[in-house]
Amino acid sequence: MSAYVVGVDFGTASGRAVLVDCADGRELASASFPYANGVIDERLPAPHDHVRLEPDWALQDPEDYLRTLEYAVPQVLADSGIDPGDVIGIGIDFTSCTMLPTAADGTPLCLLEELRGEPHAWVKLWKHHAAQPEADRINAVAAERGEPWLARYGGRISSEWFFAKSLQILDEAPELYDRAERLIEAADWIVWQLTGTETRNSCTAGYKAMWSKRDGFPDSAYFAALDPQFEHVVDEKMSRTLLPPGSRAGVLTAWAAALTRLRAGTPVAVANVDAHVSAAAAAVTEPGSMVVIMGTSNCHILLGDELVFVEGMCGAVEDGVVPGLIGYEAGQSGVGDIFAWFAEQAVPPEYHEAARRQGEDVHRILEQEAAELRPGESGLLALDWWNGNRSVLVDADLSGLLVGMTLATKAPEVYRALLEATAFGTRVIVEAFESAGVPVAKIVACGGLPERNRLLMQIYADVTGRVFSVAASAETPALGAAMSAAVAAGAEAGGYDSIVEASRRMAHLSEHAYEPNEAHHAVYSDLYAQYVVLHDLFGRDGDGVMKSLKRIRDRTGEEVRMS
Amino acid sequence: MSAYVVGVDFGTASGRAVLVDCADGRELASASFPYANGVIDERLPAPHDHVRLEPDWALQDPEDYLRTLEYAVPQVLADSGIDPGDVIGIGIDFTSCTMLPTAADGTPLCLLEELRGEPHAWVKLWKHHAAQPEADRINAVAAERGEPWLARYGGRISSEWFFAKSLQILDEAPELYDRAERLIEAADWIVWQLTGTETRNSCTAGYKAMWSKRDGFPDSAYFAALDPQFEHVVDEKMSRTLLPPGSRAGVLTAWAAALTRLRAGTPVAVANVDAHVSAAAAAVTEPGSMVVIMGTSNCHILLGDELVFVEGMCGAVEDGVVPGLIGYEAGQSGVGDIFAWFAEQAVPPEYHEAARRQGEDVHRILEQEAAELRPGESGLLALDWWNGNRSVLVDADLSGLLVGMTLATKAPEVYRALLEATAFGTRVIVEAFESAGVPVAKIVACGGLPERNRLLMQIYADVTGRVFSVAASAETPALGAAMSAAVAAGAEAGGYDSIVEASRRMAHLSEHAYEPNEAHHAVYSDLYAQYVVLHDLFGRDGDGVMKSLKRIRDRTGEEVRMS
Repeated sequence: MSAYVVGVDFGTASGRAVLVDCADGRELASASFPYANGVIDERLPAPHDHVRLEPDWALQDPEDYLRTLEYAVPQVLADSGIDPGDVIGIGIDFTSCTMLPTAADGTPLCLLEELRGEPHAWVKLWKHHAAQPEADRINAVAAERGEPWLARYGGRISSEWFFAKSLQILDEAPELYDRAERLIEAADWIVWQLTGTETRNSCTAGYKAMWSKRDGFPDSAYFAALDPQFEHVVDEKMSRTLLPPGSRAGVLTAWAAALTRLRAGTPVAVANVDAHVSAAAAAVTEPGSMVVIMGTSNCHILLGDELVFVEGMCGAVEDGVVPGLIGYEAGQSGVGDIFAWFAEQAVPPEYHEAARRQGEDVHRILEQEAAELRPGESGLLALDWWNGNRSVLVDADLSGLLVGMTLATKAPEVYRALLEATAFGTRVIVEAFESAGVPVAKIVACGGLPERNRLLMQIYADVTGRVFSVAASAETPALGAAMSAAVAAGAEAGGYDSIVEASRRMAHLSEHAYEPNEAHHAVYSDLYAQYVVLHDLFGRDGDGVMKSLKRIRDRTGEEVRMS
Repeated sequence: MSAYVVGVDFGTASGRAVLVDCADGRELASASFPYANGVIDERLPAPHDHVRLEPDWALQDPEDYLRTLEYAVPQVLADSGIDPGDVIGIGIDFTSCTMLPTAADGTPLCLLEELRGEPHAWVKLWKHHAAQPEADRINAVAAERGEPWLARYGGRISSEWFFAKSLQILDEAPELYDRAERLIEAADWIVWQLTGTETRNSCTAGYKAMWSKRDGFPDSAYFAALDPQFEHVVDEKMSRTLLPPGSRAGVLTAWAAALTRLRAGTPVAVANVDAHVSAAAAAVTEPGSMVVIMGTSNCHILLGDELVFVEGMCGAVEDGVVPGLIGYEAGQSGVGDIFAWFAEQAVPPEYHEAARRQGEDVHRILEQEAAELRPGESGLLALDWWNGNRSVLVDADLSGLLVGMTLATKAPEVYRALLEATAFGTRVIVEAFESAGVPVAKIVACGGLPERNRLLMQIYADVTGRVFSVAASAETPALGAAMSAAVAAGAEAGGYDSIVEASRRMAHLSEHAYEPNEAHHAVYSDLYAQYVVLHDLFGRDGDGVMKSLKRIRDRTGEEVRMS
């Protein structure tokens, strides 16, 4: 008897569904939906497009998530020809922390007519970085009170996380904060829409909301110290009941069944995070193995036996990825985003014309020319902080840097320097883990970039001096979400009873692995030494040039808004 | 009776002639000739285009200089309708140090058939930076021997200068060095072609060849310490007879008259440097006044009463600009060159398309959008060292830096940051003079940029907090060369007996001067503080990141050439 599962991955620019055979992980169909409103970072959608957003804001429209279900799930059913009755479960994964305020019934506040013009009513996307003052307060108060959970997050909480974003709403829009009966991860919100029941997953809570299996959330006194009105945020607007990954959140309602064309009553897995759900889908289930999800940003998930302190990691959560192991998370907040920025904002017409002539993407043209260069040949070096630095510095106020330009510098050279910079950033993370005593024995890459960009992968292998394997699936998060669905359905229904078992049967690696070239590795180690000099100079100097520039910029921006 | 003079300015990319009325400096006609072989910096001209040049090389073709005379001088005669008999003199100015090896009769070695494939036989353009090892040796030996002249050049000799370039020929092509019976500034070479007689001017000798009116050239023991074969370089291949600016080098030969369509016997002024000849043409003849010649690079000429040591100036020469005063020179080795690099190498198609639609240059489009920004608004800051740093660091091995990029950074923001960076570079120079006790009371800009780029000029005023006047002439160096011709011709012939007198009558300022905006100046002072942090961090750290990158680059380049 055939059993199939559907996984839906909610990314930064689009959502995508896959329909997967439970027996072997074969992907029968996939479909994606580019969000109509994409990333909202300059002004709100019409008719409120007179509302301009300040720098560092990044919002989304929750209706884009529903449209993804409505378009992509029926599409994979149609493309595969699979009978909805043979689909034993659906699972989802999401970017995180992507969160929104809702009414008690789950209605997003931004869908209420009178609140559509209020930026704080919308979904705050993971890369919304405007809550840095709140993150600073969260860190300062935690340090002052000696909060024990701080060490689990590398000693610093990011502005991207749940309580920083929530506190920003309270700080800047207190009335809207009052209206928000629920504050919820978009991951859990979409599962709520599917099942009709509000559930919360322990993965986002553990990685993005300072929760742990042993100690729960920080205590109310801590929240009160941030702001008296924030004291009972958990009990008033969240939940202390958290379900582990792979468990069942509920079943599809009739409404959700009509939306997705699946059967009402189909099991729905508890929500999960795109990165974390990718580990098992990339065959990463053993201690010492790391998955690097490479896309707009990089996320590194490393499995370990023991909980130790590692500088600047994003979190270490027991059972967070695989039961019984510590799931360490680290990340780079700009990777593919930086390459895309470069291709759009800094590449002269000749390369775009070559792309048109060859019917290729401009990235491909740049890659072809960049691949002809030898390591070090351009004399360029970059700090990959266009979107701040997540690990190991945990500082959204850092910015990009490029050095070494001459009048002979060409676009493919800069492009390669940007690829290299992100590889250096990954090397910093790998070395931070190893020097803290958490071994990194195996690395598997997945996500949108490894498949498309062979040069990038070879650079990662050359820079780190390590073999980079690549997950076979082009849709690892969606496959991982589908694997969660298989576990939520259970072995009896044709699924599996554990994520490790599901991974063994459903996850595969690509045959080609990237081996480091030793000569290139030697040159890259010299360049890496210079990268580390710049990294420490600009990243560890608490009040250096980058912060000053941002302060001057913000001051100017305020004057403009006030004038 | 009408009297006219012709000035010919030999620039980096083209040469241009003006025909000027001696009475009031009115420019009756001008014509320019873009060099056929331009700047030769990748490979030699065909049929020797298999000869690739190493990084930092920049050569020119001396025939382009002759073609300039042949095309542009007849053109201004034709356009103005002036009778060659009413032209009382011709003067020229040149980039410097731009030098070449020739045979005893003045034939450039690169015009000898058997030497055309030898890079060292060609003209070394001012921005040829490959003689850095020789400059390092020149500085080290001078410091070791306590050479008294070193202080006149800010304590450091540039790789751009005459003896560094000459020594590079000896180091790398000793046989060609032997063949070179003369080593000569292109400025003097072109006067030789006009007059049939080899003369040397004291301006290039003073600023670029360590000569002074009081002490002459460094002594032979110093040259011998650089290399035994270099001991008698001055007596063997140069001359100790140096003529001051404004004096007469000779008169046009019949051959040169045929080339230029002027009369044989027309007085020819001694050669001069483009920057230095511009001072008088910009009405800068008093102590405390500075002319900034703004083009591909910036050159600052400041007049002072006394000779003092100023860090990183390019030279201080008695009578170098105006008789009786010290002419201080400082410079920025990349300005318009950097803007041009940016427009060509880093601007996406939309701006080029807008330029095409509006029938404008892409610089204009960038300027329009950049002008909408407020100081500090972009959060960007650059070090303007794409072509190294001339003053005050005197280091060709430095490179460009840009910091503050985010995913929202746009091309006009970077463009403005580059304009600002060059203004910060000028402020460093002005402050170095003032803190050494040489006052800067009046600034006049001239050259190709001030006329075309109002935003740039306003930024210079705002960054420095000083009024920037602009020379009325669009061809200041050529006007200055014409003024030299008027002095060479003398008052009796309808010219003048001194450059100060010629300046009083022939030089004019534009009516519009750029006044600093105090609010902008305040923000720029904050940004300037950060510029100084970066300047000192990257520029004064003798073996920092920029040098390491260049060393890695050069090592890689060597491996490529050897493989």
